[in-house]
Amino acid sequence: MREQPNLDHLSINTLRFLAADAVQKAKSGHPGTPMGAAPLAYTLWDRFLKHNPHNPAWPDRDRFVLSPGHASMLLYGLLHLTGYDLPLEELKNFRQWGSKTPGHPEYGETPGVEVTTGPLGQGFAHAVGMAVAERWLADHYNRPGHQIIDHHTYALVSDGDLQEGVTSEAASLAGTLRLGKLIFLYDDNDIQIEGSTDLAFTENVAQRFNAYGWQVLGPIDGQDLYAIEDAIRRAQAETERPSLIICTTVIGFGSPQQGTAKVHGEPLGEAGLNAAKESLGWPLQPSFYVPDAVKTHMGQAVARGQATEQAWQEGMAAYAAAYPAEATELAIQLSGELPADWDVGLVDLFPAGTPPLASREASGKALNALAQRVHALTGGSADLAPSTKTNLTGYGDFGWDQYCGHNMHFGVREHAMGAIVNGMALHGGLIPYSATFLQFADYMRPPMRLAALMGIRVLYVFTHDSIGLGEDGPTHQPVEHLLSLRAIPNLTVIRPGDAHETAEAWRAALLNHSGPTALILSRQNLPLLHDDNGAQASGLHQGAYTLWQSHAGDPDVILLGSGSETQLALEAGKELAAGGVRVRVVSMPSWELFDRQPAEYRESVLPSAVRARVAVEAAIKLGWERYVGLDGAVVGMAGFGASAPASVLYQKFGITTEAVVASAHKLLATA
Amino acid sequence: MREQPNLDHLSINTLRFLAADAVQKAKSGHPGTPMGAAPLAYTLWDRFLKHNPHNPAWPDRDRFVLSPGHASMLLYGLLHLTGYDLPLEELKNFRQWGSKTPGHPEYGETPGVEVTTGPLGQGFAHAVGMAVAERWLADHYNRPGHQIIDHHTYALVSDGDLQEGVTSEAASLAGTLRLGKLIFLYDDNDIQIEGSTDLAFTENVAQRFNAYGWQVLGPIDGQDLYAIEDAIRRAQAETERPSLIICTTVIGFGSPQQGTAKVHGEPLGEAGLNAAKESLGWPLQPSFYVPDAVKTHMGQAVARGQATEQAWQEGMAAYAAAYPAEATELAIQLSGELPADWDVGLVDLFPAGTPPLASREASGKALNALAQRVHALTGGSADLAPSTKTNLTGYGDFGWDQYCGHNMHFGVREHAMGAIVNGMALHGGLIPYSATFLQFADYMRPPMRLAALMGIRVLYVFTHDSIGLGEDGPTHQPVEHLLSLRAIPNLTVIRPGDAHETAEAWRAALLNHSGPTALILSRQNLPLLHDDNGAQASGLHQGAYTLWQSHAGDPDVILLGSGSETQLALEAGKELAAGGVRVRVVSMPSWELFDRQPAEYRESVLPSAVRARVAVEAAIKLGWERYVGLDGAVVGMAGFGASAPASVLYQKFGITTEAVVASAHKLLATA
Repeated sequence: MREQPNLDHLSINTLRFLAADAVQKAKSGHPGTPMGAAPLAYTLWDRFLKHNPHNPAWPDRDRFVLSPGHASMLLYGLLHLTGYDLPLEELKNFRQWGSKTPGHPEYGETPGVEVTTGPLGQGFAHAVGMAVAERWLADHYNRPGHQIIDHHTYALVSDGDLQEGVTSEAASLAGTLRLGKLIFLYDDNDIQIEGSTDLAFTENVAQRFNAYGWQVLGPIDGQDLYAIEDAIRRAQAETERPSLIICTTVIGFGSPQQGTAKVHGEPLGEAGLNAAKESLGWPLQPSFYVPDAVKTHMGQAVARGQATEQAWQEGMAAYAAAYPAEATELAIQLSGELPADWDVGLVDLFPAGTPPLASREASGKALNALAQRVHALTGGSADLAPSTKTNLTGYGDFGWDQYCGHNMHFGVREHAMGAIVNGMALHGGLIPYSATFLQFADYMRPPMRLAALMGIRVLYVFTHDSIGLGEDGPTHQPVEHLLSLRAIPNLTVIRPGDAHETAEAWRAALLNHSGPTALILSRQNLPLLHDDNGAQASGLHQGAYTLWQSHAGDPDVILLGSGSETQLALEAGKELAAGGVRVRVVSMPSWELFDRQPAEYRESVLPSAVRARVAVEAAIKLGWERYVGLDGAVVGMAGFGASAPASVLYQKFGITTEAVVASAHKLLATA
Repeated sequence: MREQPNLDHLSINTLRFLAADAVQKAKSGHPGTPMGAAPLAYTLWDRFLKHNPHNPAWPDRDRFVLSPGHASMLLYGLLHLTGYDLPLEELKNFRQWGSKTPGHPEYGETPGVEVTTGPLGQGFAHAVGMAVAERWLADHYNRPGHQIIDHHTYALVSDGDLQEGVTSEAASLAGTLRLGKLIFLYDDNDIQIEGSTDLAFTENVAQRFNAYGWQVLGPIDGQDLYAIEDAIRRAQAETERPSLIICTTVIGFGSPQQGTAKVHGEPLGEAGLNAAKESLGWPLQPSFYVPDAVKTHMGQAVARGQATEQAWQEGMAAYAAAYPAEATELAIQLSGELPADWDVGLVDLFPAGTPPLASREASGKALNALAQRVHALTGGSADLAPSTKTNLTGYGDFGWDQYCGHNMHFGVREHAMGAIVNGMALHGGLIPYSATFLQFADYMRPPMRLAALMGIRVLYVFTHDSIGLGEDGPTHQPVEHLLSLRAIPNLTVIRPGDAHETAEAWRAALLNHSGPTALILSRQNLPLLHDDNGAQASGLHQGAYTLWQSHAGDPDVILLGSGSETQLALEAGKELAAGGVRVRVVSMPSWELFDRQPAEYRESVLPSAVRARVAVEAAIKLGWERYVGLDGAVVGMAGFGASAPASVLYQKFGITTEAVVASAHKLLATA
């Protein structure tokens, strides 16, 4: 079926050629998907999307996620034409330094971009998280006659997205959670980079999504605007099940090589571009052509959006009058700010005399204390809550029958969990956390990286953080995970050494508004390191601090430890001091926090002149050289762990007080 | 339905209580799945499994994978009772230091354990790789009347396995590939750690697997041995589709808390254990009780296995007589050894005068040259072969219509790709490789880690290795990935600096029999670093070597570079030398290879006395301190990249010859 003529037709072709022209000008990019999927995105944006281009932060807007982020120019075209602050000049600067139009959409760089996408599958799963947040806020705050939170989450998804495991995980959970306001348009073009999808992807997608509990619509002709419109209406009418609309499209529509992998990821070339314009009746010049009629037509989104938001604002005013307490609390949640006295619950959780406590246990207590005041705290575990100690007592389960519950059950789906908490944070209104064993951080790195890149507040609870977990053995014992997380820019990794530091770590995590924080926690019990009810543990916020020293002034040797090994450093320090060595023990729960301190502070903790330094951590040694240099030593793991009781493992792998003492003596002898 | 009485019944209960007793004695472990799934595993092993307990390496044995590795005691019980070299004493030492019975099954630690499992989903996907290898070898080597490779791959899989995304990816691909000899028993017990699977997993599993193109059998009663037997027979009869047999089971069957999450992951306790024994009519004492009748009955596996292998050996002899060339080649492939003259193809690939070439291009040439002789080389990409340059020209596609093809199309499924190549390597007969962008290494870390832990030869091609990929931007630019891979013990990471080093990197990768190797390759062109047809590049095998120096003897400053930045170090070195500085330039493509060298060699390259050292790499700086110490400097990335042409990015992020020179001067000035 042909496209509808006139404005629709013109608008769609405008989107197509803005994309093709931008890719051609940049000599780089992906014209195929924008040209094929333009009718889908246009119909959604023109007929349905609730948004205010002049206020991209309006909380009750519909969310739109472009999961195949390589089709970024399709989104930039929509944003430009509907009146977002994205001038045509920016489109002409596609993929150039300093432009608002990077190669893949980046959250924070471009008004109207809801999430950074590009790595396939992530957009799909992030959108599920946005829909979770919408249901949570709606169930908590809506009142009869006051549907103040009530919007859809839409996504465009691709063949590649549907092949990624994270999508399967998120789709299954979305079905279980009955997220009926999720509506995904599947750009089914049968082409991937290596050729036909038949090479690797012959499954029955409709049947698979039915199995997940989704409504599946189509396949429809992805160029038939009436069919698209009708399908979206049917999707909206289905409130119990998420909807997948299968849309048959032609990649690179209009170009001489349409329907082939050749139009996926490179410019059409001058000849190809001209041929495409001719075939679709588009003027060859000027490039980046926007007909006035299209400008006017699509620009109406501004007035529509302002009116829609205005009506919502009036509704909010009425709500605030009827439910002032709820309105205030909602406003705080949506602001992302912490409520007054948010952290008073942390004080005195662990008085002197508290017996040894696993940091996962201390974390559970801190989290529950914080949740009393920080209502936005919501999260859960990938089927390990009893072990990660992340259940919020008294706050109920989040589920289709109770969206107001705070405890999420992600199932054994770490990857989707990571993406869903990102989506929740991006939506706004929640401070989400996830939880699993540190070992399984590997399953969720891609969304963790995106959280760091986007600079959003997401909290990761990672327990069972070393050989200290014991008998489960090397498949479950992280050794490289600490370093591999420390490697991610803008991810703050904190491995507290006792209950007091754990409480401070939670405080630091909530205060970190500009990126994710990972809390690395022990399975095994740890004694308190401080005799002062934890006052000294506030040093955690500087990343490292002097925990104990035998003498004032520069020591002969510095011992550094993190997490469960801080106690070993402390014991070793006292033993060395008893032998007459001038020693300083530094608790170093967070490299990132320490590296952000002024040089003077860092020098005060680790004086340049003191080169005899021993670090101890039950993890690989690599990386600690940043703090101990070529002249220091690291007591750590040389490789993978083993299956045995934890105390045996510490002995066998030589991570002991004695090893730290011996290492210090050796350095002092050769200094 | 009750279990069949007598030997079957006795054997199953023996398996149950060996597991429960071992967990009780270890005070740690998972009794629930062994007790619930014992009838499934027993029926498979007793009635079907083709194996020779006295030769666990027999190539044509059936493979059995225990995907829920926490049920390890079920497998240890089976191995012990069927006559593998696993005495009862080892079962009594479950989860203890030095035993052959670690908490989760570990490949190489226990005879008969085909794969290390524990992280959920991995076993499922590894089994798919084993079935791939079986079909490949069968299609290459079987001849009419000579079905020398012809076995099944079985797995026990759990609710948790089916929730993991890697399982979805592998299942979809297995359906596309029509791997009819895969037979999976799904232990469907409706329980996960947080409670009922209804909390997070309400999908229709049967419908989902039908959608993937699988035969789904059941649900059957997981205690009805006749039903299990019948279902396995029907699975064997279906040769076009993999089979999933849904078996309804009761976790912790027989214990007072059967059917609840409480029996999943901790000992039953004395009282609970006794109650379970009483309820199943088992003697309370002795623990680890094996009735003689069971010993005899299950021990018959030895004689059966010997006879079966003997018959196969005779078949092989007949095959070798009829097809001597094929038999010889197959023997080489199965041995894991490289054929004679395997690497002659590498010589002279890049003569002096070769224009600048991306290392991904050089890699493609090296791979294709090697494939001429190393017939076992088989692999592919997660839908990026045209970019990763990993297609083997002239070797065809691996697919259901042509299992003899060498080029695999994994689809956009990096995680399953990582697991499947592991399964191929574990099966034996193949040297598998995978390929994707370095960025997406994050999607496949869990199986990469398992490859390193198992010490198997798997090759990873990772291209587009830095900001050098340019416009695709930070979602696609790895900055932390090099360090996060270097962090994995026993994974050798090699980032060659030019075409010659790339050829040597492939040589090193094939020579590494005891672990995986990752080749980190550029998108952008790189000039040759050597004028000697690459002879000097053999220094790559030491991890780092002096590429160029201005003077003999110790220099004033050492410059270190890897990959595409080695040329920057070289240019900077020549510029510094022109200014009168005594300088050494070290090419350092592999930290792991360098760290394995004798201290003397390392000292010869990086003399302790020379502290003015500058490393340059287009990645985060962390980690390089191991080589430059507290007194050196690193020219690298401070955070994420950006979207712009590569040359602009190198300038903007300050990764330039000038920066290296300036850094060296600064160190020399303050030294």
